[in-house]
Amino acid sequence: MTIRDYMQSLGRGARDAARAMARATTGAKNAALAAVAEHLRVRRETIFAANATDLAAAREQQLAAPLLDRLELTPARLEAMADGLQQVAALPDPIGAVTDLNYRPTGIQVGRMRVPLGVVGIIYESRPNVTADAAGLCIKSGNATVLRGGSEAINSNQAIAACIAGGLQDAGLPGAAVQVVETTDRAAVGELLTLSEYIDVIIPRGGKGLIERISKEARMPVIKHLDGVCHVYVDTHADADKAVTIAYNAKTQRYGTCCTMECLLLAEAQAEAVLARLGPMLAEAGVEIRGDARSRQLLPQITAATDADYYTEYLAPIMSLRVVSGLDEALQHIERYGSKHTDAIVTENLAHARRFLAEVDSSSVMVNASTRFADGYEYGLGAEIGISTDKFHARGPVGLEGLTSQKFIVIGDGHIRE
Amino acid sequence: MTIRDYMQSLGRGARDAARAMARATTGAKNAALAAVAEHLRVRRETIFAANATDLAAAREQQLAAPLLDRLELTPARLEAMADGLQQVAALPDPIGAVTDLNYRPTGIQVGRMRVPLGVVGIIYESRPNVTADAAGLCIKSGNATVLRGGSEAINSNQAIAACIAGGLQDAGLPGAAVQVVETTDRAAVGELLTLSEYIDVIIPRGGKGLIERISKEARMPVIKHLDGVCHVYVDTHADADKAVTIAYNAKTQRYGTCCTMECLLLAEAQAEAVLARLGPMLAEAGVEIRGDARSRQLLPQITAATDADYYTEYLAPIMSLRVVSGLDEALQHIERYGSKHTDAIVTENLAHARRFLAEVDSSSVMVNASTRFADGYEYGLGAEIGISTDKFHARGPVGLEGLTSQKFIVIGDGHIRE
Repeated sequence: MTIRDYMQSLGRGARDAARAMARATTGAKNAALAAVAEHLRVRRETIFAANATDLAAAREQQLAAPLLDRLELTPARLEAMADGLQQVAALPDPIGAVTDLNYRPTGIQVGRMRVPLGVVGIIYESRPNVTADAAGLCIKSGNATVLRGGSEAINSNQAIAACIAGGLQDAGLPGAAVQVVETTDRAAVGELLTLSEYIDVIIPRGGKGLIERISKEARMPVIKHLDGVCHVYVDTHADADKAVTIAYNAKTQRYGTCCTMECLLLAEAQAEAVLARLGPMLAEAGVEIRGDARSRQLLPQITAATDADYYTEYLAPIMSLRVVSGLDEALQHIERYGSKHTDAIVTENLAHARRFLAEVDSSSVMVNASTRFADGYEYGLGAEIGISTDKFHARGPVGLEGLTSQKFIVIGDGHIRE
Repeated sequence: MTIRDYMQSLGRGARDAARAMARATTGAKNAALAAVAEHLRVRRETIFAANATDLAAAREQQLAAPLLDRLELTPARLEAMADGLQQVAALPDPIGAVTDLNYRPTGIQVGRMRVPLGVVGIIYESRPNVTADAAGLCIKSGNATVLRGGSEAINSNQAIAACIAGGLQDAGLPGAAVQVVETTDRAAVGELLTLSEYIDVIIPRGGKGLIERISKEARMPVIKHLDGVCHVYVDTHADADKAVTIAYNAKTQRYGTCCTMECLLLAEAQAEAVLARLGPMLAEAGVEIRGDARSRQLLPQITAATDADYYTEYLAPIMSLRVVSGLDEALQHIERYGSKHTDAIVTENLAHARRFLAEVDSSSVMVNASTRFADGYEYGLGAEIGISTDKFHARGPVGLEGLTSQKFIVIGDGHIRE
């Protein structure tokens, strides 16, 4: 079978399974999630053996240490995968929920019913836990899914796929509801992106290069996440304690996440006092600061920032910094250099907070809180399949609701249009 | 200036104006809508003169009578345009609305704020009233818009565009918030579809050919509406009076709309009784019925339907008909031949109503009501920019809300992530 024929057959299978999944009861979906968790625990040694094969091949190919770390499945990570599925089972079922059912002057009742999107294609890189996480969210939201993981994790992903298939079977749901692509041939991704007849939406998870390629080639809608160039702006009316605490947390709590602060903007009235305390803390944490001329006069450890620095998502212990005159200049900076991901203001002034919330065009906008909160779990979505920096369909952390749509329902008693 | 340069300049202007529109107050937006309505009324003679020029050219090119009808602006149609703008002004402003603002265990408050999409591109055919309708919805929803009407309506559209520009100016809003493409060069559409940097979403309104071309070429998301092959299924447990009334209304109330019934499915237990009454009514209305062998045994006026008939959106006094064994066969027929637009069941049986609502995968699903209700005004959306048969972002009639998105807002008091 050619790659094209293989991917077509996966697509057709997914489309058929999607119909069954849309009609699956909450009980059956939850039973499948619990059964997959059980299979993961029971077959742990098989999964670890498959993962060891992947790790050995990756070491042979001299993959970088962070990639090896993401590829590795430890007992704790396997337990987290199983536990995550049980947590998704415990979330309310979004499908079938009817809202806004109101009488119209004509006498009909009009409302909306939440429905699955259909078939979700997910393309991701090394971490094999995404296979279980994504499958769980798609099962709960009544979608079928085609999963394409990284070639370096192929054995781990196939071992996890066997557990998912077992769980679906136990619950009487179609095995094709979750299909993990079995080939490492790179042509499979290209074929997947052309299956607009079978795949309703593509969600890429991975580096910027992967996401840009997918956005360009996909013939169906894409829920995507590009850069996270996140700002904290310390306003003229900020509380200095909160400013120092929030900026330090937003930068240092984790360096490699998309909601880590990459640029600190300081109102000139606050710059000296904040830098006097924050500078030594960041120095001790080993964070390099690249700033403008005014900031460098205040703190000698700051090196010179180029214009390109302000556009950069470092994902590392490096940050940019700029002293601004106040709120307007901060808003202009964020509009020009930001990536519409997550931006925060630190202020005690209600008018400034209100303007910042309304005017910053980002998927998450915060007042007096660390940008690190931009996460589906922290927001109470219960789970997260990714973060969208698009405006269309879903924006910000995407949970179960982002995998659904709403149709209109109309209930009458013989009503006709006059 | 080349067409490419011209369209680029429109795009840049729209992007700048979108920022101002996102921040425009409800008062300013409503003032602009009222002022545009006033300009339309004051400049009516200029608009009629421009429309007469378009009509003369169209007659010279021997355009078909329905196209000429759609192109013509009568005093009543002009008044309806102005009145429509005032109705949109009276709707609640969706922008800035905060919902679901809840405390999380960490102490932060997380909610969602409704925001504009940004720049909306609208491509439409002959009816010049779309220019004012679309501009009104985009202004109210805080978006900028680039409008590309049919070349046969160019003079009418430019006259209306002058009124819109006047209204925006009166309200202190940027003129580039609504830009009507001034050239009839067909290359302008192609250029518009590549402006993904400036245009956030495209809404095509017109025939199937136009919509298919745009879906294929657009580099940005498209809110689109393809066929409306709408069904009425008369269930085994239907009330025959309601069945006859609804089927007759769904077919004959207007033939040319996307929510007109194109296929009637009759449960075999009902077929004879329903056809005995409905057949003569449809015959009197001049509706041709194309049916399967069983229906033809019941009513001699029915001609033989081909398989292709069941896929056809007639938009004319023609309909297809099939006798089915019951609910399951009806659901299978709709799944195979339907276009996921609007489908209705007539039944007194709650279990069948419940299954039909849950299982039919269409943008509107109805019980005991005419498919002709599938309309933004009938649904209480206050206005309609189109109907979406996609599942992504918006489904069914699209009003102001479909032109918006939601961002997350987080409010803390110095909160950091542990």
